[in-house]
Amino acid sequence: MSAKNKLHSSQFHPILRKINEQNVDISFHNIMYPVFIVEDDNQQQVIPSMPSVYRFGLNKLIDHLTPLVEIGLKSILMFGVIDILPKDEIGTNADSNKNPVIRALPILRQKFPDLLIACDVCLCPYTSHGHCGIIEEDGINNEKSIERIANIALEYVRHGAHIVAPSDMMDNRIFAIKNKLIQNGMEKRCSVLSYSVKFASGFYGPFRDAAKSTPQQGDRKGYQLPPGSRGLAIRAARRDVDEGADMLMVKPGIAYLDIVRDVKNEFPEYPMFIYQVSGEYAMILHGAKAGAFDIKNILSETLISMRRAGVDCIITYFAPTILEWMKDGHL
Amino acid sequence: MSAKNKLHSSQFHPILRKINEQNVDISFHNIMYPVFIVEDDNQQQVIPSMPSVYRFGLNKLIDHLTPLVEIGLKSILMFGVIDILPKDEIGTNADSNKNPVIRALPILRQKFPDLLIACDVCLCPYTSHGHCGIIEEDGINNEKSIERIANIALEYVRHGAHIVAPSDMMDNRIFAIKNKLIQNGMEKRCSVLSYSVKFASGFYGPFRDAAKSTPQQGDRKGYQLPPGSRGLAIRAARRDVDEGADMLMVKPGIAYLDIVRDVKNEFPEYPMFIYQVSGEYAMILHGAKAGAFDIKNILSETLISMRRAGVDCIITYFAPTILEWMKDGHL
Amino acid sequence: MSAKNKLHSSQFHPILRKINEQNVDISFHNIMYPVFIVEDDNQQQVIPSMPSVYRFGLNKLIDHLTPLVEIGLKSILMFGVIDILPKDEIGTNADSNKNPVIRALPILRQKFPDLLIACDVCLCPYTSHGHCGIIEEDGINNEKSIERIANIALEYVRHGAHIVAPSDMMDNRIFAIKNKLIQNGMEKRCSVLSYSVKFASGFYGPFRDAAKSTPQQGDRKGYQLPPGSRGLAIRAARRDVDEGADMLMVKPGIAYLDIVRDVKNEFPEYPMFIYQVSGEYAMILHGAKAGAFDIKNILSETLISMRRAGVDCIITYFAPTILEWMKDGHL
Amino acid sequence: MSAKNKLHSSQFHPILRKINEQNVDISFHNIMYPVFIVEDDNQQQVIPSMPSVYRFGLNKLIDHLTPLVEIGLKSILMFGVIDILPKDEIGTNADSNKNPVIRALPILRQKFPDLLIACDVCLCPYTSHGHCGIIEEDGINNEKSIERIANIALEYVRHGAHIVAPSDMMDNRIFAIKNKLIQNGMEKRCSVLSYSVKFASGFYGPFRDAAKSTPQQGDRKGYQLPPGSRGLAIRAARRDVDEGADMLMVKPGIAYLDIVRDVKNEFPEYPMFIYQVSGEYAMILHGAKAGAFDIKNILSETLISMRRAGVDCIITYFAPTILEWMKDGHL
Amino acid sequence: MSAKNKLHSSQFHPILRKINEQNVDISFHNIMYPVFIVEDDNQQQVIPSMPSVYRFGLNKLIDHLTPLVEIGLKSILMFGVIDILPKDEIGTNADSNKNPVIRALPILRQKFPDLLIACDVCLCPYTSHGHCGIIEEDGINNEKSIERIANIALEYVRHGAHIVAPSDMMDNRIFAIKNKLIQNGMEKRCSVLSYSVKFASGFYGPFRDAAKSTPQQGDRKGYQLPPGSRGLAIRAARRDVDEGADMLMVKPGIAYLDIVRDVKNEFPEYPMFIYQVSGEYAMILHGAKAGAFDIKNILSETLISMRRAGVDCIITYFAPTILEWMKDGHL
Amino acid sequence: MSAKNKLHSSQFHPILRKINEQNVDISFHNIMYPVFIVEDDNQQQVIPSMPSVYRFGLNKLIDHLTPLVEIGLKSILMFGVIDILPKDEIGTNADSNKNPVIRALPILRQKFPDLLIACDVCLCPYTSHGHCGIIEEDGINNEKSIERIANIALEYVRHGAHIVAPSDMMDNRIFAIKNKLIQNGMEKRCSVLSYSVKFASGFYGPFRDAAKSTPQQGDRKGYQLPPGSRGLAIRAARRDVDEGADMLMVKPGIAYLDIVRDVKNEFPEYPMFIYQVSGEYAMILHGAKAGAFDIKNILSETLISMRRAGVDCIITYFAPTILEWMKDGHL
Ligand SMILES: [Zn+2]
Ligand SMILES: [Zn+2]
Ligand SMILES: [Zn+2]
Ligand SMILES: [Zn+2]
Ligand SMILES: [Zn+2]
Ligand SMILES: [Zn+2]
Repeated sequence: MSAKNKLHSSQFHPILRKINEQNVDISFHNIMYPVFIVEDDNQQQVIPSMPSVYRFGLNKLIDHLTPLVEIGLKSILMFGVIDILPKDEIGTNADSNKNPVIRALPILRQKFPDLLIACDVCLCPYTSHGHCGIIEEDGINNEKSIERIANIALEYVRHGAHIVAPSDMMDNRIFAIKNKLIQNGMEKRCSVLSYSVKFASGFYGPFRDAAKSTPQQGDRKGYQLPPGSRGLAIRAARRDVDEGADMLMVKPGIAYLDIVRDVKNEFPEYPMFIYQVSGEYAMILHGAKAGAFDIKNILSETLISMRRAGVDCIITYFAPTILEWMKDGHL
Repeated sequence: MSAKNKLHSSQFHPILRKINEQNVDISFHNIMYPVFIVEDDNQQQVIPSMPSVYRFGLNKLIDHLTPLVEIGLKSILMFGVIDILPKDEIGTNADSNKNPVIRALPILRQKFPDLLIACDVCLCPYTSHGHCGIIEEDGINNEKSIERIANIALEYVRHGAHIVAPSDMMDNRIFAIKNKLIQNGMEKRCSVLSYSVKFASGFYGPFRDAAKSTPQQGDRKGYQLPPGSRGLAIRAARRDVDEGADMLMVKPGIAYLDIVRDVKNEFPEYPMFIYQVSGEYAMILHGAKAGAFDIKNILSETLISMRRAGVDCIITYFAPTILEWMKDGHL
Repeated sequence: MSAKNKLHSSQFHPILRKINEQNVDISFHNIMYPVFIVEDDNQQQVIPSMPSVYRFGLNKLIDHLTPLVEIGLKSILMFGVIDILPKDEIGTNADSNKNPVIRALPILRQKFPDLLIACDVCLCPYTSHGHCGIIEEDGINNEKSIERIANIALEYVRHGAHIVAPSDMMDNRIFAIKNKLIQNGMEKRCSVLSYSVKFASGFYGPFRDAAKSTPQQGDRKGYQLPPGSRGLAIRAARRDVDEGADMLMVKPGIAYLDIVRDVKNEFPEYPMFIYQVSGEYAMILHGAKAGAFDIKNILSETLISMRRAGVDCIITYFAPTILEWMKDGHL
Repeated sequence: MSAKNKLHSSQFHPILRKINEQNVDISFHNIMYPVFIVEDDNQQQVIPSMPSVYRFGLNKLIDHLTPLVEIGLKSILMFGVIDILPKDEIGTNADSNKNPVIRALPILRQKFPDLLIACDVCLCPYTSHGHCGIIEEDGINNEKSIERIANIALEYVRHGAHIVAPSDMMDNRIFAIKNKLIQNGMEKRCSVLSYSVKFASGFYGPFRDAAKSTPQQGDRKGYQLPPGSRGLAIRAARRDVDEGADMLMVKPGIAYLDIVRDVKNEFPEYPMFIYQVSGEYAMILHGAKAGAFDIKNILSETLISMRRAGVDCIITYFAPTILEWMKDGHL
Repeated sequence: MSAKNKLHSSQFHPILRKINEQNVDISFHNIMYPVFIVEDDNQQQVIPSMPSVYRFGLNKLIDHLTPLVEIGLKSILMFGVIDILPKDEIGTNADSNKNPVIRALPILRQKFPDLLIACDVCLCPYTSHGHCGIIEEDGINNEKSIERIANIALEYVRHGAHIVAPSDMMDNRIFAIKNKLIQNGMEKRCSVLSYSVKFASGFYGPFRDAAKSTPQQGDRKGYQLPPGSRGLAIRAARRDVDEGADMLMVKPGIAYLDIVRDVKNEFPEYPMFIYQVSGEYAMILHGAKAGAFDIKNILSETLISMRRAGVDCIITYFAPTILEWMKDGHL
Repeated sequence: MSAKNKLHSSQFHPILRKINEQNVDISFHNIMYPVFIVEDDNQQQVIPSMPSVYRFGLNKLIDHLTPLVEIGLKSILMFGVIDILPKDEIGTNADSNKNPVIRALPILRQKFPDLLIACDVCLCPYTSHGHCGIIEEDGINNEKSIERIANIALEYVRHGAHIVAPSDMMDNRIFAIKNKLIQNGMEKRCSVLSYSVKFASGFYGPFRDAAKSTPQQGDRKGYQLPPGSRGLAIRAARRDVDEGADMLMVKPGIAYLDIVRDVKNEFPEYPMFIYQVSGEYAMILHGAKAGAFDIKNILSETLISMRRAGVDCIITYFAPTILEWMKDGHL
C-alpha cells in the first residue's frame, strides 16, 4: 500500500484533474468540418438520415460558413455530390469544369483567405457503378484507378485545394498523387491527408445517403480494411508514410480508438486525423434525443477520448455545435 | 511502390480477411452477462431507460437464466438492488443476510453448477448518501471504506461467489480484499476482478437508474478517473496489479479502446475485461431504432473492435441477443 | 528524393503548421504563477533584480490576484518571505502561526474558491544559515531535515494547501511527507508536487534575492543536482515516483528541456512541471529591453518549446503578461 | 526509503559530481566559431546588435584568427556578406570569383593548414529578395533552388572548404549537393553538415543584421520548421540522413535541447551540431550586463547543457571567450 | 550506392575524425590510480611481476603522489597489504587501528584535500585462508561475510574514505554496507563503488602477487563470475543497483568491453568504472618491450576503446604515465 | 535483499557455470585460420615479429595444412604476398595468372575438398604505393578502386574461392563486387565476407611486416575507421548490409568487443567474424613468455569473451594451437 499507489491525491480538485488530463484540450485547429457541395449554387438539401446536416450549393455554403469562420472555424473537408451531371465508368465529372468542388475552390479561397480547405478525392460519387476505382471484368484495376485518382487530385490542387484527401483505399494512390504533384511542380502547395486506415464499417450508412455514393453492387471489403485487423491497419498506415503522406487518418472514429493509439505509437511524427462518421453522429444524436444521456456531456467525453487516444484533428459533423460551445467559453 | 505496400492481396477473400483479423472471434467465454437482482423473489421490474433490461427477483432470474445457460451462457455479474431494505451510512445491507445477492448465491450455484458467478462489490446501492465509500465530514474516509468493502467481499465469497468485482475506486481496496480473503483462508476459491480503470463518465446515466445508486449530492470525480487521463489510467491498473488483482477491467467500453490497448500493452499477462455500459447500450439501441444502421452489423463490429483492442471478456447487456445469434451459428 | 522526404507540403499554410505542432497549445491550466508573500499584510516590496515582480503582503496579494483570477488564472505557487520574524537553526517560523503563508491560506481559499493553491515547502527562507535542511557538525542531517519538512507540509495542508511542493532536495522527503499525510488522514486532499530534478544552477541568482534565501556559507551542490548529470536527474525522478509523488518538476527551465524529455519518456504517467526561474525571466526581459528581440515572440517560442519538450504546467513570473495575451485571444 | 533512492552519496564531492556528469567536458574540437567575411579585405565592421562580433575583411580575419588558432581553435564556419557586389534574383555572387568566401578559402587553407573550414551555403545573403531559394510567381521553385545551391557548394569545395553547410531548408538539397559532389569526384574531400532541424525562430534577429540577409518580404515559415513541431523535426533529420548528410544540426540552441535529445536518440551514429544563435548570444550578454547573473557561470552551464543533451560540436559566437577560458585551464 | 553509404567524407580530416569519435576524450577525472600501501611507512617495495609498480609505505606514498596531484591526479584507489601484522580467519586487521589504509586515510585527506580517495574493501588480503569471505565447514558463510565487510567499510568511511569499493563478490554486500552506513548516519559522505561485474579471470595473476592475496586453497569461481556469462553479468549489476550502489565497475577491462556496453545500455544512469588489471598492464608492457607495437599508440587506443564502450572512469596502473602525457598536451 | 539478487546459487557448480555461459563454446567451425602464401612454392619464410607464424609457398602450405585439416580445421583465409613479381600503381599482380593465391586455389580445392576457402581481397600487397586503392593526384579514386577490387574478387571466385573478403574499406566495394559477381553469374557460389568495421589501429604492426603491405607514405586513416567512433562503425556495417554482404567482420578483436556487441545487436541476422590481429597475437604471446599469465588460460578466456560479445567465427593465428587443444578434448 505504498503512497505511489494512492491516486486520490492526484485528482481531488478540478484543476488537478485538468493537469492530469494531458493534451486533450480542444482548440480551433483540432476541428475540421466536412461539407457536401452540390451543383445548384442556391440549393440547400436536407439529408433525412443526418438531422441538421445539409448538402449546400456554393452560395448557400458561403452563407453557412461565414458565421462559423467568424467564430473560429479553421478548416473544412469538401465532398462533391452530383445529381444532374452524368455519372460514368471513370467518374469523368470528378474533375470536369462543372464539378461543384472545382467550381467552388477559387471562390472559397477568395472569400475565406485564412480557411484551410481539404478536398475528399474519390471516384465513387461520380461513377455509375458507385465503386471507388475503375472496374474491369475481374474487379478493380488498381493501376488505372490510381492514375485517375492522381489526376483528380491534381485538378483540385490546381484550383486551390490546400489538402487532398484520397478516401479510395486503392494500393499506392499516395505514391501516384505525390508523383503527379511533383511532376507538375505542385507538391509544395498541397498536403496529402491519407484516409490511411479506413475500415469496411457499418457506421457509414447515413453518409452514403448524404454523398449518394452507395455501390450499385458488391461491397468495398476488398479494399477497405476488415474491422478486426490490427495488422492490416498498421501496414496501411506504413504504406502511406512510405509513399509520402503528410497526414494520416483513422476512420471511423469511436470504435477504433485502439487503432489510433497503435498508429500514433508507430508514427508519432505524423499528424493524426480521425473521422467521426455519420453513424457515430446519428448514434449520439438519437441516444441523446431518447434521453439516455446529455449530448454535451457525451460529445465532450467522446472528443476528449479521441484526443487522448492520439488524435490531432477531428473531422466531425458536430463542428458548428462545438464551435458554438467554444465561443461561449465552454469545452 | 514496393510490394510490401500492396494490401489488396491480403484481403480480397473473406477467409483471408478472417485470417488477418487475429484473435477477434467471440466465443461463449468471451461474454459476461450483468444482472440486477431485487429483494422480492418473484418480481420482474422494467427499467425505462434500458429497454429489454430488467431487475429480477431470484425466481424470475432463474427463469430468465435457464434458457441462456442452455444455449451457452458461461458467466454472470450480479448487482444487488434494494427498495424495501433500509439504506444507511455504512451500507449495512450490502452484506446482511437479507441482501438479495447473498441469498441468491447458494441457490444459483446449485441450479447452475457450471456457471461462473461474479458479484459486483460496492457500497453505493446500499448507502443512504449513494456514494461508494464511507462519508465523513471532509469527504470519504478511505481506510474505513476499504475495510467495509473487504468485509462485503468476504461475505460474497463465503456464500459462493467465484469472482468479486470491486467497483468503488477507493485506493488500495484490492489490497484490503486480498488480505481479508487470505486471513480467512478463502483467497484460493475466489478471483478478484478489479474495476481498475473506471472513468467518471457520462455513459453511466441509465445504469444508475437501474441500480438505484445515484449519489444524493456531489459526484464521483474525486475517485473515478478523469476521462482525459491516460496517466492515471495506467497508474490505476498498475496499483491493482501491485495489490494482487487477478483480472483487470476498463469501463466504460467503446470510448476507451485506446486505454484498453495501453493497459494490455503494459500488463499483457492479465485478462482484460471491458464493460459495455448502459449509455453505450442505449446509444446503439436508439441509433438502430432510428434507422441509422443495422443493430447486428454495428454490435458485431463493436464487439470485434473490443476484442481487437485487447479485451478478453466483454460484460454486456446485449448478452442474450448475442447468445441468440451465436446459437444460429452467426457471429 | 522520395516524396516522404519532402516536407514543405506539410508546412506551407499557418493552420497546417498548427496541426503539425502537436499538443503545444497553452491553456489556462498550463500556467502556474509563483508569488512571494511577506509578513506585513499591506506591503508591496520591489525586487530590484526582477523588474515587475513584487513581494506582497496578504491584502496586496489579494488585490493583485483578483483581476488575474478573473481573466483565467488557475493556480499559484506561494513562497513565504520573512523580514521581521526571527530565523533560527530549524526554521521555526516555516510553520508557526505567524508564517505569512499559513495565515494567508484560509483567506485565499475563501476569496478564490476555484483557485488551485500550491505551497513551496522548504527551510531555507526560515533558517538562520539559509540551507534547505538542518545543519549539524558534519553537514546536513537528512533524517531530521525530512522530519521537519514533513511537519511543515502537514501544516500547510491543514491550513488549506491543495499542493505541497518540497524544493529542498533532501533524500526521501517525498516519502516522509506522504507518510506524515497518510498518518494524519490528509493524503487524499493534497497533491505532492516534487521539485524532483532541481539542478545547482546559476540561473537562480535573482530568486535568492526575492526569497531572501541565500545560504550564509557553502552552497547547495551537495544536494541539488550537478547540471551535467542526466543520470542523477533520472534517478531523482525515479526516487520521487517510487516514494509517491503526484507530479514531477524540472528546474530550471530553458537549459534543461532535454531532461524534461528524458523524464517524460521515462514517466509519461506523471504531470510534468517546469520552473522558468528568475535568471531566465531576467535574461528574456533584458534581452528584449536591449532590442535583441521582441519579448512576445521569444516568450511564446519559449513556452511552446517547453510544451513540446513534454511540460504540462509552466511555473512562470510572466504569468500576468501571458494571461493578458490570452485574454486578447493571442497565444 | 531504499538506499537506491539516496542520491547525496553520489554527489557530495566535486570529483564525484564530475564523474556523474558523463561526457559533458568541452574540448577544443567541441567548439566551432562562426565568422562573417566581407569584400574589403582590410575592413572590420561593427555589428551593433551583437557586441564584440565583427564582420571581417580577409586580412583582418587572418589577424583575428591567428591568436585563436594558436590557443586551440579547431574549426570555423564562414558566412559571406556582400555590400558592394550586386545582389540579384539567383544570387550570382554566392559563387562568383569575387565572393569573399571563395577568395578567402585557398588563403585560409594555406595560412591555417590544420584548421577545419566549414562554409555556410545559402542564397539569402546574395539574392535581391533575401530568400533562401529562387523565387517564382507562386513562391520558391524548389528544384531550381537546390540545383543552384548544389553548384554553390561545389564551388566552395573546389576552393578548399572541408565542410559545406546548407542552411536553406529546401527539400532534398542534401541529395542535390551530394550528387553534384559525387559527379565531380569530390564527395570524398568534403563533409556535408546539414542544418537539418532549423526552426523559424525569433532568436535569429541580430544575425540577419550581421549577415544582411533579412527577406525583403514574406518570411521563411514555409521552409523553416514550426517551433512546436517535434514531428517535422524528426522527419527533417531523417530526410537528411537518408540523403547522405555527414553531420546534423539543430538550430537555434538553448530552447531546442529536447529536440537535440530526440534527434540524438533517433540517429546516434551522426555527429550532432548545435548553433547557439545570435539571440541567445544577446540574451546571455545583456542578462549578465544587467547583473542578473555571472556570464561565465551561465555560459558554462549552457554549454554543459548542450553537451548533456547530446551535442558533439557547438557553433558559438562566444568561441574566443571560451578558448580564452580553456587556455587558463578553466572550463 | 546512396550517398548515405559513403563514409570517407566523414573522416578525411583529423578534426572530422575527432568529431566522429564522440565522447572518448580522456580528462583527469576519467582516470583513477590504484595504489598499494604497506605497514612500514618508509618502505617502497618492488613488485617483480609488475614493472614500475610499487608497494608504498605512507611516507613514500605521499612522496609518490605529490607530483602526480600537482599535474592533475584526481582520485586514487587504495589497497592495504600486510606483511608483519597477523592474518586470521576473519581478517581482523582489515579494520584494526594498525591497518595501513586506516592509518593513512586522515593524513592523506589532510595532505591532499581535493583528492578523491577510494578504498578497496575485501577480506582476502587479511585472512589466513586468502578468501574474500568467512569460511566455514561447507564453504563461505555469506551472511557473516557481508556483516564483516560492512563493518570494514564503515571504519574506512569513519577515517575519511570518500568511496568504499567492495571487491568481494559476496551476495548482497552492497545492501549490507549501505545499511550499515545509514544506521551510522554516514551514507551521505561516502559513495559505494561496486565491483559489480567481476569475472573469475586469468588476468589477475600479477595483482595477487602485488596484494599478497592468493587463496591458500580452492579458487574464487563460486563467487566471481564465469567469463562467458552475459546473463550473470547483467544480473550482478542489477543486484547492485537495486541494493543502492552509487557506481558500477566491470573487471577486468580489455576482454570485457562488450559487457561494459551491455551494462551501460541497461543502467545508463550510473557512472561506469573499468579496472585495467595487472595482466592487461603486463601484456601491453611486454608487447611493447618486445617491439610488437608502440606503447603510447596501443595504450591510447585501449583507453579510447574503454571510453567508447561506455566507461566513465578507468582504474589503471598506467595513471602516472598517462598524466605525464596529458601534461605535455598529448592524449 | 531479494532472492533475485542472490547470484551464488547460479554459479557454485562447474556445470552450472557452463550453463550460465550461454553460446560461448568453441567448435571447429568457430575458427578460421589466416595463412600467407608466397610465390616460391617450396619456401617457408619466418616472420620475425610473429613467432610461429610463417609465409608459405604452395607446397609448404599443403604440408602445413594437412595435419590441421585432419584434426578439424574447417576454414582458412588466404593472403597473397609477393616478393619477386613486380608491384605497380594498380596492383596488376593481384589477379594475374602468377598471383600465388590464384595459382593455389584450384589445387587447394582439390587437396582439401571439405575445406572452406576465403580469400582476402585488397590492392595493398600488390601496389607500389602500398595503399588499398588506386591513387591519383588528390588521393584515392574510389570509383576506379572498387572497379579494380571487384575484378580481383571475380578472379578469385573463378578460381575457386568460396568466400571473398574485401579488406580495403573503400566506399561501396561490396556493391561493386556483388554486382560484378551477378553480372558474371557467379554470385551464387561465393559469399562476401566484409571487413565491415575495420579500424585504423596500432595493433596491425606485425601484420604489415607479414604481408609486406605498409604504405609507402601517408596512412589509412582516411578510409579505415577512427578507433573512437561507434557511429562510423555502425554506419559502415549498415552500408555493407545494404550493399549485400553475406557476413560481417570487426577488426581488430580484443579492444573492440563493445563494437561487436553493437553490430550484433543491430544486425543479429548476419554471421559476425572477428579478426584477432597480429598485435593481439604478439601481446598474448609476449605476456605469457614474460610469465605474467598462462597462455592457455588467457587465450581461452579471450576466445570465450569474443564469443560472448557475439562473434560467430574467430580469425586467429593461434588456430593450430587451439585445434591442438581441442584435439585433446580441452577448450
Ligand atoms: Zn469512394
Ligand atoms: Zn459504487
Ligand atoms: Zn530551500
Ligand atoms: Zn538562407
Ligand atoms: Zn578479495
Ligand atoms: Zn589493403
